[in-house]
Amino acid sequence: MSFFSFELDPALAADPVFDLHQRGKMAISPTVPLASRDHLSLAYTPGVARVCEAIAEEPALFHDYTWTANTVAVVTDGSAVLGLGNIGPRAAMPVMEGKAILFKQFGGVDSIPICLDTQDVDGIIAAVKAMAPSFGGINLEDISAPRCFEIERRLDAELDIPVFHDDQHGTAVVTLAALRNATTLLGRRFADLRVVISGAGAAGVAITQTLIAAGVDGANVIICDSRGIIHAERPDLTPTKAELAATTNFSGRTGGIAEALIGADVLIGVSGGAIDEAALAGMAPGAIIFALANPTPEVPPAVAHKYAAIVATGRSDFPNQINNVLAFPGIFRGALDVRASTITPGMKVAAAAAIADVVSDELRADAIVPSPLDPRVAPAVAKAVAEAAVIDGVARRPARSEERALIPGGN
Amino acid sequence: MSFFSFELDPALAADPVFDLHQRGKMAISPTVPLASRDHLSLAYTPGVARVCEAIAEEPALFHDYTWTANTVAVVTDGSAVLGLGNIGPRAAMPVMEGKAILFKQFGGVDSIPICLDTQDVDGIIAAVKAMAPSFGGINLEDISAPRCFEIERRLDAELDIPVFHDDQHGTAVVTLAALRNATTLLGRRFADLRVVISGAGAAGVAITQTLIAAGVDGANVIICDSRGIIHAERPDLTPTKAELAATTNFSGRTGGIAEALIGADVLIGVSGGAIDEAALAGMAPGAIIFALANPTPEVPPAVAHKYAAIVATGRSDFPNQINNVLAFPGIFRGALDVRASTITPGMKVAAAAAIADVVSDELRADAIVPSPLDPRVAPAVAKAVAEAAVIDGVARRPARSEERALIPGGN
Repeated sequence: MSFFSFELDPALAADPVFDLHQRGKMAISPTVPLASRDHLSLAYTPGVARVCEAIAEEPALFHDYTWTANTVAVVTDGSAVLGLGNIGPRAAMPVMEGKAILFKQFGGVDSIPICLDTQDVDGIIAAVKAMAPSFGGINLEDISAPRCFEIERRLDAELDIPVFHDDQHGTAVVTLAALRNATTLLGRRFADLRVVISGAGAAGVAITQTLIAAGVDGANVIICDSRGIIHAERPDLTPTKAELAATTNFSGRTGGIAEALIGADVLIGVSGGAIDEAALAGMAPGAIIFALANPTPEVPPAVAHKYAAIVATGRSDFPNQINNVLAFPGIFRGALDVRASTITPGMKVAAAAAIADVVSDELRADAIVPSPLDPRVAPAVAKAVAEAAVIDGVARRPARSEERALIPGGN
Repeated sequence: MSFFSFELDPALAADPVFDLHQRGKMAISPTVPLASRDHLSLAYTPGVARVCEAIAEEPALFHDYTWTANTVAVVTDGSAVLGLGNIGPRAAMPVMEGKAILFKQFGGVDSIPICLDTQDVDGIIAAVKAMAPSFGGINLEDISAPRCFEIERRLDAELDIPVFHDDQHGTAVVTLAALRNATTLLGRRFADLRVVISGAGAAGVAITQTLIAAGVDGANVIICDSRGIIHAERPDLTPTKAELAATTNFSGRTGGIAEALIGADVLIGVSGGAIDEAALAGMAPGAIIFALANPTPEVPPAVAHKYAAIVATGRSDFPNQINNVLAFPGIFRGALDVRASTITPGMKVAAAAAIADVVSDELRADAIVPSPLDPRVAPAVAKAVAEAAVIDGVARRPARSEERALIPGGN
């Protein structure tokens, strides 16, 4: 039978991007045979009833006899899609499908795109909580700040499966990995770095927290939003930004990005806003510039190289691509493998270290992170994350099978 | 990398049903290549952004360039799973996965099991409405009566995609198909049939409505619930049952199943409750008995054959299996193909006729419905349903491509 008998707009169909996107980018398939009555009686009635009864009696069997232990929902409300803004749940779907297939391709994680028809914080939380039994984890995606912070915090607290907002933590993990290798290459210490972060949205906030957790001194971190440097005296701070002000910029510097960059060792751009070359001139010698806005970096790489020893962007057509695909497939792979109840800061730092380590023997200024296609990355991240989950006490089964019997109540 | 490194309970793993269910029964997969940077730049950033922008500008493109037009959610709250009762969302998952893979196997429909952590009517409706942009249709499953009636009615009214409670309508469609062929074989007319339906849950209510819509005279239909015959004088009727009382049993018969069956031509059991042989003795000669309870029919087939010319059950190990898999894959295939906004009574009757017609040239008393594995069924059902959707004015694109240009605003 022909499932789709219609022709698409010929102009769009001739475009390679649209041609590839026809009918979407993913499918489901049975992993069991369904060709005979016997097959049906095993996979469906009457056989399936025995599996249901067994799970009803012993809930832990749920993880062994359904696909959920390996399944993650990629959830968005379409409010902050790529750099496109609030385009809504339907226009967001191609990104969520893309994310879902990257989960599968690189992490072996079955992933389902869920685009929500609400942008209300309570509505989003209620919907995700309602569907949570269907999944082993929740990857939040492209939800605008500051709502994303409350949504992630409450869902993570209320659900017993990992909840991870990739725009925050995926970006932060890969940025940390890149910064670790960049500082190694330049012989710098995290504790001494003067860091400027341009952008106080989902990524900027998470990068700040993650760098501080990894050893950067918050006193020497300065964050800029669209109104300039965030400092404690500013009257217009949201609760999230007030928290940032309290943990960074101890000297109370004020002004714009140019003032922020005076003497800075590191610039991390996650704003989408352009930064003038004149402002870069104030940075310390041998600086590090990560200009991560997509598709247009805050600073053109050629300009950045005039002031920085190491430059990274979010683009695939320049060296040192800071790409979240280096993180999320392995992070969820590891979290699912040990049935982690949450993703701790320790698991994120471990993921960053694993990403960095993949290329630590072959470091060059134009190769501080692995290629997004490097097949070593996801397994290394998964292993590190699983081990960190065990150390942090959030694993509900051990990282290796021989340890299984040692975990009280483990299943 | 090894995604699952643990051994399951050896006793369960040795059981063919549990062995088959290890890790669940389904997976997702990319349908586009992801092996090179060029591939990633088409399927993910930066290419995907152009598809998102195009959909944001022209919402109809959503159906052409995402997987949603071919994707159905199988949604349950776990309140009425098979004959097991209210076992909750997690224990329900094996059935929902089974349903999802049957959708794919027989209808080519990508289907996702969604087990909800709420049994509150408003909570279920809110959750399904929130996730609705992610799907082309909603198949409700194993939700207990009477909540299922309100949930389906409100969701169908409030969403612009098909909402179909399979326990109601799937069962009704296949029952109608079987009854059509049974009466053809016996030379009876629907309008003359005296029908008794034992069971007034989801299936019983829908079967009653569907048979009346198909030409059975409601005056001659008698429905029994666990307290006996439903009649207008009974003081204990729910709103749904009061409605049944108003449209059936015009003679006001009272009593139990034995009284109901006196002179009846057809018995349809959808109750799970056993029916005594003595009660069957009152049926008219050459009766039709469908004893559909699973796994234990209301009447053992050998006993039923003593009183009936044609016997059907829900079981695969007896002839004439009334199995919903004959209906739902083709119904959603047809509805999705024409992008129907709902599934009308006309589409259900058309589906039943198509199922019946597949075996109309080879009718025998022990072969009144096709085998669940008959590959002719789903395409025939899909075609009939799509055409009925166009006739009923709920199709949003034509049933055949050459008609497309004729539909104003069609896309």
